[in-house]
Amino acid sequence: MSKVAKKYLATDPWIIEEDGFHPEHAEVSESIFSLGNEFMGVRGYFEEGCTIERFVGSFFNGIFEEEPINHPVNYNGFPRRFHFMLNSLDWLYTRISVGKEALDLGKSRFSGFIRSLDLREGVLKRSFTWHTGKGDIRVEFERMLSMVRPNVGMQRITLSSLGFSGRIEVKLGLDFSNLQHNRGKSFWNTLRKEHCGDESAIMARTLKSGQKVFSAMKTSCSAEADVKKEAGPQIVSRSYRINLKENEKVTLQRIVVNTTDKKAVDDDVFWKRSLETARKLDITGYEKLRAEHVGYWKKIWAAQDIEIDGDPENQQGVRFGIFQLHQTYHGVDPSLNISAKGLTGEEYHGHTWWDTETYCLPFYIFNNPAAARNLLEYRYLTLPQAKQRAIEKGCKGARYPMETIDGTEACSVWQHGDLEIHVPVAISYGIWHYSHLTGDKDFLHGHGIEMLAEISRYYASRGGWSQLTGEYGFWCVMGPDEFHMMVNNNCYTNFMVKKAFEYTIAVLEEMRKKAPAKFDSIVKKLNLGKDEMGNWKKMAEHMRIPQDRKTGIYEQHDGYFDMPHLEVDKIRQEEFPLYHNWAYYKLFRTDMIKQPDAMLIQYFYSKEFSDKVKKANFNFYESRCSHESSLSPGVHSIMAAELGMHDKAYSYWGHAARLDLDNYNNNTNQGLHTTSMAAAWMNVVYGFGGLRTDGEFLSFRPSLPKKWKSFKFSLRYQDRILDVHVDREKVRLSIDGNGAVRVELFGKACTLDEKGLEMKMPAGRIA
Amino acid sequence: MSKVAKKYLATDPWIIEEDGFHPEHAEVSESIFSLGNEFMGVRGYFEEGCTIERFVGSFFNGIFEEEPINHPVNYNGFPRRFHFMLNSLDWLYTRISVGKEALDLGKSRFSGFIRSLDLREGVLKRSFTWHTGKGDIRVEFERMLSMVRPNVGMQRITLSSLGFSGRIEVKLGLDFSNLQHNRGKSFWNTLRKEHCGDESAIMARTLKSGQKVFSAMKTSCSAEADVKKEAGPQIVSRSYRINLKENEKVTLQRIVVNTTDKKAVDDDVFWKRSLETARKLDITGYEKLRAEHVGYWKKIWAAQDIEIDGDPENQQGVRFGIFQLHQTYHGVDPSLNISAKGLTGEEYHGHTWWDTETYCLPFYIFNNPAAARNLLEYRYLTLPQAKQRAIEKGCKGARYPMETIDGTEACSVWQHGDLEIHVPVAISYGIWHYSHLTGDKDFLHGHGIEMLAEISRYYASRGGWSQLTGEYGFWCVMGPDEFHMMVNNNCYTNFMVKKAFEYTIAVLEEMRKKAPAKFDSIVKKLNLGKDEMGNWKKMAEHMRIPQDRKTGIYEQHDGYFDMPHLEVDKIRQEEFPLYHNWAYYKLFRTDMIKQPDAMLIQYFYSKEFSDKVKKANFNFYESRCSHESSLSPGVHSIMAAELGMHDKAYSYWGHAARLDLDNYNNNTNQGLHTTSMAAAWMNVVYGFGGLRTDGEFLSFRPSLPKKWKSFKFSLRYQDRILDVHVDREKVRLSIDGNGAVRVELFGKACTLDEKGLEMKMPAGRIA
Repeated sequence: MSKVAKKYLATDPWIIEEDGFHPEHAEVSESIFSLGNEFMGVRGYFEEGCTIERFVGSFFNGIFEEEPINHPVNYNGFPRRFHFMLNSLDWLYTRISVGKEALDLGKSRFSGFIRSLDLREGVLKRSFTWHTGKGDIRVEFERMLSMVRPNVGMQRITLSSLGFSGRIEVKLGLDFSNLQHNRGKSFWNTLRKEHCGDESAIMARTLKSGQKVFSAMKTSCSAEADVKKEAGPQIVSRSYRINLKENEKVTLQRIVVNTTDKKAVDDDVFWKRSLETARKLDITGYEKLRAEHVGYWKKIWAAQDIEIDGDPENQQGVRFGIFQLHQTYHGVDPSLNISAKGLTGEEYHGHTWWDTETYCLPFYIFNNPAAARNLLEYRYLTLPQAKQRAIEKGCKGARYPMETIDGTEACSVWQHGDLEIHVPVAISYGIWHYSHLTGDKDFLHGHGIEMLAEISRYYASRGGWSQLTGEYGFWCVMGPDEFHMMVNNNCYTNFMVKKAFEYTIAVLEEMRKKAPAKFDSIVKKLNLGKDEMGNWKKMAEHMRIPQDRKTGIYEQHDGYFDMPHLEVDKIRQEEFPLYHNWAYYKLFRTDMIKQPDAMLIQYFYSKEFSDKVKKANFNFYESRCSHESSLSPGVHSIMAAELGMHDKAYSYWGHAARLDLDNYNNNTNQGLHTTSMAAAWMNVVYGFGGLRTDGEFLSFRPSLPKKWKSFKFSLRYQDRILDVHVDREKVRLSIDGNGAVRVELFGKACTLDEKGLEMKMPAGRIA
Repeated sequence: MSKVAKKYLATDPWIIEEDGFHPEHAEVSESIFSLGNEFMGVRGYFEEGCTIERFVGSFFNGIFEEEPINHPVNYNGFPRRFHFMLNSLDWLYTRISVGKEALDLGKSRFSGFIRSLDLREGVLKRSFTWHTGKGDIRVEFERMLSMVRPNVGMQRITLSSLGFSGRIEVKLGLDFSNLQHNRGKSFWNTLRKEHCGDESAIMARTLKSGQKVFSAMKTSCSAEADVKKEAGPQIVSRSYRINLKENEKVTLQRIVVNTTDKKAVDDDVFWKRSLETARKLDITGYEKLRAEHVGYWKKIWAAQDIEIDGDPENQQGVRFGIFQLHQTYHGVDPSLNISAKGLTGEEYHGHTWWDTETYCLPFYIFNNPAAARNLLEYRYLTLPQAKQRAIEKGCKGARYPMETIDGTEACSVWQHGDLEIHVPVAISYGIWHYSHLTGDKDFLHGHGIEMLAEISRYYASRGGWSQLTGEYGFWCVMGPDEFHMMVNNNCYTNFMVKKAFEYTIAVLEEMRKKAPAKFDSIVKKLNLGKDEMGNWKKMAEHMRIPQDRKTGIYEQHDGYFDMPHLEVDKIRQEEFPLYHNWAYYKLFRTDMIKQPDAMLIQYFYSKEFSDKVKKANFNFYESRCSHESSLSPGVHSIMAAELGMHDKAYSYWGHAARLDLDNYNNNTNQGLHTTSMAAAWMNVVYGFGGLRTDGEFLSFRPSLPKKWKSFKFSLRYQDRILDVHVDREKVRLSIDGNGAVRVELFGKACTLDEKGLEMKMPAGRIA
């Protein structure tokens, strides 16, 4: 798994810049320069068209197509319907020509190419000088997707004559002919396209799922121009004929309003309603819309930056990650969620995984708590699907899916979708984590407890009682470590479910005492049986957590210690990735793991494990880990930092922050590793920052990598901004607004008030 | 699993007879009245056509079509090509009409219907009186598939006027328009059809697998007739116009020669060669061909009958089973094998399973040793495919497929095809069983040892060494009990592989000493490494066989005793079959089993286990067994008989002998349960006969069910016929030819010579 940086972008603390066009990285750049605003996303493709290989990607969160899953034999309970995020219309469609000469960076002569994304503003710019047969033109593009108004996208094109004089034709379109990139075909049926007054609009429907996308644009031109309104089978467009005089310039602007329909609203009703939305925006408002968008980003960075002194490349990488996370999701709509590649590619099908609760949620809890709540509300909205799925599997309660867009199971591989029963408990964990840190009882005592109870019900119906020991546990599961299929009593799963049972009971008990009306109402709504809580309690108390008491090492599952040993280090490099190069069944029958389940619980519930136990588990599992999961090195880094193994901590963090900027995995062309960016953020805050969130107070135990002079991060925490600054001398905590909080620093409980808190860095915490 | 007899056939010791047509059982009768001769098979359909629902089935052993297997995700090593036995041409195609009145038992008026199969002769007869508008005609059909000449099938139609007078038209055809019944489409492309002299012939090729079937017929008529030669797109036929006078009769005969091509022989060459074969048979030879066929059956019954006094229904059932087994396979061609439904239906796709070696082979060893050898030669012919499959799975040696026709894996469900690693060891077991009983060193020291060694190699590459105990074993397997997927160290698998290792080494050692030239040549051919035998020995010595030493109960696999308990008796009847009614994943996570793996080894290697251990295992596993495998009750019956649980023995044997005659499983319409018939034979011989074959001599420990006055069976054994007669007083063994043998009777070693051997039945052995 040797990873080599493919570096071609400038290192800058705030700006991602491509100086000179790098066609060999064309699709990688398209991913990196992606813009998004949770509702929609566009890759950084050249909107004017280009004959160089490219992946024109334009996505709407939650808009998908469906198809049947064909199993060789369809056993009861197998998922039957697959769905995948659709590549949608190119609403930036632009064609520019001068006479018979069409602008095409694959063919045209040009110079001075620069493409840049200023993370402080969220505006993508690109410019170059086009050497036409009739003289030079400086071409500038600007685009943004409003972070304030989810439906709105904007484009500005400036054409400045550098000696050129003559007629230019610019065509601005809304184009549904764009194909699903990884399938080479379209899943759209264009229903309607019209020029209606100021707007040009188009609407299409997916072939099977019946979802619709509508797009309308207003366009304007700073100079006088002939405007021709046109339409093709899947496109509606306006062509501007402009006479550009020598050394003058012309600016074209377009504001696009996109809407989606997932509920099969009547075509006509949806069209009219969407057009109304579009008409409310005034074309003169480009600057206003731009300003409010840029203002949004200013506010973000004022409160939520991470600063690293001494590591400019990772400084850039971490900020790029923060930027992309906000772009992917910021809590506008609880029916939306985060997919593995955000809105930047088709890989992983736009599906949401348990990564949302385990890897992404902390970022939102500490940066945008309202968004964090909405991520959980998404699960509440899909609770009916989870309950239905539990029934299909012969269980009760709520069985959340392995991967999904609309809440139904879309994992086509039954062995993952059905054996990885740790997905629902990740949601319980998320509810606990969010509620514990924000104190949001409104959520907890409403939707939260309903999910907690239904999830507990699921586990109470899915498990069994050992005939030998009388313990409760789960037989036939696959843990997060997917290199062991159908094992019994995976330590991660069992531990997490124990916690979930206990938390569900604690919340219900708290409600019974402190919110009896809500308690009564939830008991009634859920038809909560008399024995249910008692059963959960018994199950939690008797939960099997396999561990070697002598060494403290948790046994990943029953019989794991007995399995044949494999020297992971001796696997030849060319055999990776093992999934591609090994016979499938060979993956499962040794003690090699893909990611360390035992470490994960020791990170999530840090307080419950001694340093000695953590060290023993780290040493044992590290040597058995193949890191075939991209989430694995992050956990190793966090645990190594905690245990004072500074070099390992920094080495495992390694490429995390620049995974995409340097295309370490050679697949950034397919889209960004969005959820990995959340992990990179966790690596700074939980890893080097040493934050732990499972105690009564926030606790910090920072460490400082060799290379870093200092670093600083900020957390939103219970209506305060809490800053953590670490340098080679000291750690300094400060707080802004709303009074003092209790924190733990290097194991010592302290009060943090407006005066701040300072402590000398212990020698062992500095690399 | 309540099984109810659907009885409509007469009970007779030798004849299967349907008196009066039972259209409600039409397809069941088609299965029951199937004829076959190993090379080909036809269901008992009405060849004259019928508008009542029917399943016209005509099969050639080993002729299949192929198609890709589509997995939702194609992991490395998954089987990719499926193949299935094709329903082929209707070479009995007949149409009979009188003016505009076509004979059709779905519509025509008729009486006196009788269909009968005399097991002593192997000739299927059917007759009825057809009440035409112009008077009555007695119609008689006779058909047979020569047991002596595999390519030959025969038909005779006799039309006797019972008052009728006028013209009758009879059309005799070879028809390739017959559809694959369970898919409703044809996979045949008719290439050529001709009337060439006396013969009419047709040839077709499958669409994808490229196999060919050729069919030629000679027809004759006892009366003067106009003969018209005809052909349609997929049929070639001859129509006879006959003037039938009052109270006279006419007989039509046809002899068909069918040939197959599996090796893509040039069409023209195959056609000419086949036609030559057909021309060698003289049409005047119908009676001669019939006589030699009937003679074959006479010889079979003279030596290989089972007689049961006091149980006429089971007497009939057992003989029907013996008859069908001989029809399905009698060792004509080592490239052919036995499929689960023989040549009587499309279910199970004509695939061969490990049932051949474990359930069918004993029947052939004791009835037709040459056929038994050929069943093993089939495995030798497909050794290259098994070696290729081992490589695909990241292993060495030979990995025989779960199910196949041509030796490649055709199990579309990877979890069975890949986890049930006990298939190759069943072949080792078969080689041992055959060689041990027949003493055939020619086979053993040639093809036998080559397979044994390659199979041992496979297991040496597939297993691993326990880190805790240093034992050898197999992780991630599925035992014959398919209710536990991906378990570690299944006791059946481990035990059988230990035996296979030991036997392979023993044979090699024996060869080294007694056949050094053959030994050297095999070592060279296999490139047998110096360490290989030593490794196998070590693996056998350290093989993990999980057992509770205190109770003697074998643990079906690591951790089985710990699994949650399920009260199998409390599952409601309507939940069966569980595969259809339960969520798939629910099947695997309790101690409920589908069939008893631990009992199976105690039956195969009876000498190695004490009665106490057998009893403990029977009691433990019986209550946990759902018998969802049709092979399960048989093993229970055999073990119960051994342990003197007479009622259980008889009750588990229950429907085995009449499974199809009484359509207990409601699926006889799909075809006969051929391999279950072998199990029914085993139930008499090994169960009530108490035969065990794993000791140095044959050993007998008979018991007598309450209902039986006496029973008798015969075994071919080392060029002798050995008769066993058991009644309520005594057991009598006698032997025919070739000198004395040593046997064990009720635990006592004796010499059995031509005087015979008699022993009083112990009280405990009579129910």
